[in-house]
Amino acid sequence: MQRIHVITTGGTIEKIYSEQRGSVENLDSKIEIYLGRLRLPDAQIDTTRLMNKDSLEMTDADRALVLDAVRQRLDAPIVITHGTDTMVDTGLYLKRASGDLKFPIVLTGAMTPLGFEASDGLQNLTESIFAARILAPGIYVVIHNQAFPVDAVRKDKDLARFVAKEPGR
Amino acid sequence: MQRIHVITTGGTIEKIYSEQRGSVENLDSKIEIYLGRLRLPDAQIDTTRLMNKDSLEMTDADRALVLDAVRQRLDAPIVITHGTDTMVDTGLYLKRASGDLKFPIVLTGAMTPLGFEASDGLQNLTESIFAARILAPGIYVVIHNQAFPVDAVRKDKDLARFVAKEPGR
Amino acid sequence: MQRIHVITTGGTIEKIYSEQRGSVENLDSKIEIYLGRLRLPDAQIDTTRLMNKDSLEMTDADRALVLDAVRQRLDAPIVITHGTDTMVDTGLYLKRASGDLKFPIVLTGAMTPLGFEASDGLQNLTESIFAARILAPGIYVVIHNQAFPVDAVRKDKDLARFVAKEPGR
Amino acid sequence: MQRIHVITTGGTIEKIYSEQRGSVENLDSKIEIYLGRLRLPDAQIDTTRLMNKDSLEMTDADRALVLDAVRQRLDAPIVITHGTDTMVDTGLYLKRASGDLKFPIVLTGAMTPLGFEASDGLQNLTESIFAARILAPGIYVVIHNQAFPVDAVRKDKDLARFVAKEPGR
Repeated sequence: MQRIHVITTGGTIEKIYSEQRGSVENLDSKIEIYLGRLRLPDAQIDTTRLMNKDSLEMTDADRALVLDAVRQRLDAPIVITHGTDTMVDTGLYLKRASGDLKFPIVLTGAMTPLGFEASDGLQNLTESIFAARILAPGIYVVIHNQAFPVDAVRKDKDLARFVAKEPGR
Repeated sequence: MQRIHVITTGGTIEKIYSEQRGSVENLDSKIEIYLGRLRLPDAQIDTTRLMNKDSLEMTDADRALVLDAVRQRLDAPIVITHGTDTMVDTGLYLKRASGDLKFPIVLTGAMTPLGFEASDGLQNLTESIFAARILAPGIYVVIHNQAFPVDAVRKDKDLARFVAKEPGR
Repeated sequence: MQRIHVITTGGTIEKIYSEQRGSVENLDSKIEIYLGRLRLPDAQIDTTRLMNKDSLEMTDADRALVLDAVRQRLDAPIVITHGTDTMVDTGLYLKRASGDLKFPIVLTGAMTPLGFEASDGLQNLTESIFAARILAPGIYVVIHNQAFPVDAVRKDKDLARFVAKEPGR
Repeated sequence: MQRIHVITTGGTIEKIYSEQRGSVENLDSKIEIYLGRLRLPDAQIDTTRLMNKDSLEMTDADRALVLDAVRQRLDAPIVITHGTDTMVDTGLYLKRASGDLKFPIVLTGAMTPLGFEASDGLQNLTESIFAARILAPGIYVVIHNQAFPVDAVRKDKDLARFVAKEPGR
């Protein structure tokens, strides 16, 4: 049985449509509902709802909370669900602070919320839980069939995807 | 074979999630995709995409266009998809102007866009296409398992549903 | 609040895929799960799981049970979910035995089980619950956007739909 | 852009419900429809429909066809969709015959057909296309969040999953 930590921080992947306001908002966590639709017979998923924020609103204090949560879970692979706009920033922050790793840390999210037509959320969650078992220790963005080292990736907002960038730039 | 006219005007029922802007918008019609998922072996559905607007932005000129479209299609039942906020206003406007009817005119819409989790859109579309074959001539709001005469209904925004009101009030 | 009785008898509409046997079978009721996805704010649905059989295996004793269940619920509209192969037989049996009705009795089912891709099950359930509120007293088959009096309909197995037949033939 | 070969052979993953016969059958390929729902911006998927069989009906001649198709596609990772009952047999046959590999060959399938409620098909397809980019050269079964070397896995029919076995036994 492989233990995997899932830490949820919000972002588009778990936004919900508000019928009263006609907008999509981070109102309640739904990662666990969708994790429950995956068959994970040899995995023990421990999910922590850390916060539920649009990643453009994440502060340094929020990132310190993420780092703290990560440090307490270095005994197994970690998947962090996160808004795509600052996912790379959080990943680089964790990379600077987290020291040597024995397991991978995978950041993922979605361009369209889980459960909306044409959502990429369940695909990305599926890939990330799988990647957490397979990848070498390190910090990654896993999304849309790709695993990027966190210092070699950037979001392309117009294309609504992530693309490789030169490491260290 | 029963002919049924469908006139689309926009509203939440066909809003789409914009990945670039993170909001739901009336960008493109999708009623026909969802109509294509229904089995309608004895119906001929003629769909007209009249406009694609949030119903709070509909003007008198827009309602005149709806009336004009209706007047040209009085030879068969009509289903009008419409934003819920001013659906009753449009229905009352049609009632004042449309004279004697030989077939029902059904207004419908949705609280959550078609294709989003927990959407009521396909339910309301299914009920409305069915109601258009069954109801007596007149103008109705059909939604959430109910058929209301248009002068006896109002939207309850907090409950995200329609409720009966005293006719004529 | 409109009370509606739902009586489930099995049939394709609630067949389940057995992973062990690779076949679809009447193993457990699932109508209520799908009813729970409809918005029925002004309806009180009372569901009775009467049996769960392929309708080709229904016996005279089973039909007597259906009739008995119907007779106990004549105080409100009734929807009966049923296999399509003998749905009309059961409907005609009820018609011969049930006497004067104050509310409609609607038989429905599906060509493809609820929850399978391209299933017509939720459409038929949506239409039937709606029809039960609207139709005049009598016994009907409601399916695929149509409401047929039970003595004027037959299943066309090759077309996988129901078609009108001359009443009384 | 990563090229990935997909070879389809049938199995439960692409079974379809026959409304005329009330059974699930390998009638037509549907892998491509579901691949089309994944976001694969950096992958070029070349799909070959080799056959469409229940894997219990696969013959030695069929396995020779699979081997032949594999040998022609050793320039890139390969995903083979296959019935689960003899997936391991085909994988071991490929292992004996295929010599040194430069890329992984991933066998996958499903316990419940793609598009049926609670299907594991899209999960397994998502994982396999991802695994094909990440795993070391070799032959694997990828399913339910796990990647097994083909000589260290067996199907547990009662549990409807794959489990590790001692290599070489």
